[in-house]
Amino acid sequence: MKRTAFFISDGTGLTSEALGHSLLAQFDSIEFEQITLPYIDTLEKAHQAVAQINRMQERDQERPLIFDTIVNEEIRAIIAESNAFKIDVFSSFLKPLESELCAHSNYSVGKSHGIVERNRYKDRIDSVNFAIDNDDGARTRQYKKADIILVGVSRCGKTPTCLYMAMQFGIRAANYPLTEEDMEFNKLPVVLEEHKHKLYGLTIDPFQLSAIRNERRPNSRYASLDQCDFEVREVEKLLKKLSIPSINTTNFSIEEISTRIMAHAGLDRRMN
Amino acid sequence: MKRTAFFISDGTGLTSEALGHSLLAQFDSIEFEQITLPYIDTLEKAHQAVAQINRMQERDQERPLIFDTIVNEEIRAIIAESNAFKIDVFSSFLKPLESELCAHSNYSVGKSHGIVERNRYKDRIDSVNFAIDNDDGARTRQYKKADIILVGVSRCGKTPTCLYMAMQFGIRAANYPLTEEDMEFNKLPVVLEEHKHKLYGLTIDPFQLSAIRNERRPNSRYASLDQCDFEVREVEKLLKKLSIPSINTTNFSIEEISTRIMAHAGLDRRMN
Repeated sequence: MKRTAFFISDGTGLTSEALGHSLLAQFDSIEFEQITLPYIDTLEKAHQAVAQINRMQERDQERPLIFDTIVNEEIRAIIAESNAFKIDVFSSFLKPLESELCAHSNYSVGKSHGIVERNRYKDRIDSVNFAIDNDDGARTRQYKKADIILVGVSRCGKTPTCLYMAMQFGIRAANYPLTEEDMEFNKLPVVLEEHKHKLYGLTIDPFQLSAIRNERRPNSRYASLDQCDFEVREVEKLLKKLSIPSINTTNFSIEEISTRIMAHAGLDRRMN
Repeated sequence: MKRTAFFISDGTGLTSEALGHSLLAQFDSIEFEQITLPYIDTLEKAHQAVAQINRMQERDQERPLIFDTIVNEEIRAIIAESNAFKIDVFSSFLKPLESELCAHSNYSVGKSHGIVERNRYKDRIDSVNFAIDNDDGARTRQYKKADIILVGVSRCGKTPTCLYMAMQFGIRAANYPLTEEDMEFNKLPVVLEEHKHKLYGLTIDPFQLSAIRNERRPNSRYASLDQCDFEVREVEKLLKKLSIPSINTTNFSIEEISTRIMAHAGLDRRMN
């Protein structure tokens, strides 16, 4: 069976997507066509959205689902007229919150991702720049400023993880690739020694590593299962010997790897 | 007045953070201390969470708020015993969804960010790698594969925007810095000409640009207001002449810049 789901917002749509996505993920048996309508911030756009929703209702012969984080009352009222089943986040939760907090909410459009968060914004840009500048061992003299330094073999997921931590949480994350030379000497590169307390290891299943490397350099020694197996084993040995905490990335998404590392390393989620 | 808010999840906590954050943003008059408790996936961790919540209740002499996306019934029941005001996403919305969809939800822990999304995960890693490989005009021979190519002056926000689109939506985004030379000739660099339909311009307020550049290279010509003003003006002229769409990034967050560009350029949000 197939149903259509709309994520509708007068802002970026990210919150309604996140919420809708995790609710729909609880229904394995149903296939959902997922459509995001962001920036529905005028009455005209609201009417266009309703027309689109109703077209889907006719096509599917089932009413679409709507996950709605629109704050503006007028726009919400228009969307409510569509032939859809509506999960309305603000009307469900704002009233109870108002009475709990003994305060009125400011029904200001797009507030949650707005300019008010200027400091957070700047933090994150700085952190993204930090991650790029300190990617792949390119530079090591800023390691004093790092919140965390990821180490592991080439292509085990260090770069995306650093960027995600920077973008989502404003964490200053560097990463350093462990090479065959480091493994040979069975010790840390000198530049890492004084930052040992900030190190966090990433490991990975050798089969998956080999598959990933084969996409970059097909049929190379670098991508061979033998080589991947050797590198992973040596790095795991080194991490264990030095009591550096680590996570196996094989079965996790970037979000999971990042948030698990942060929880384990005690890094603050700078959400506000 | 100050209140404590907990975002609690048996997974990453990202959904409850996003939801809680946008709801709390509607209450300007109240200061919130925000604490995320991710991976609360055992009864023991649930009891520890309750103890932490109750300590905050004693400290604040007000009950904390909880935004909860825990799926497991047993764990939820324990959290419910704490002295807190609870916004419970799944119990509020899963039951109505079940009856609308005539289906049972699979109360599987952490499903929403799990390994089931392997394809999405790979897409995103590939896109992040694409953004890094094609950052700052470093390489141009992959532009055929790009979904979008951002152009603008140095430090106007191209790199973080490309990375965000890649990370969040799996978009292949390249970026190319327009230099004084391009401005002088008042035309596009040759490598961009055949990809004109993929170009999207970023502009920025010259004062803000100067502030950003001054952090990188204090008191340089590069960072001077005169120079920033000149570059921004020339690039805006060029974009207008060539009818390349553009967005002024000055007052927007990375999320807003990215989602606005995607909506305007008709790029698909690959959420599933």
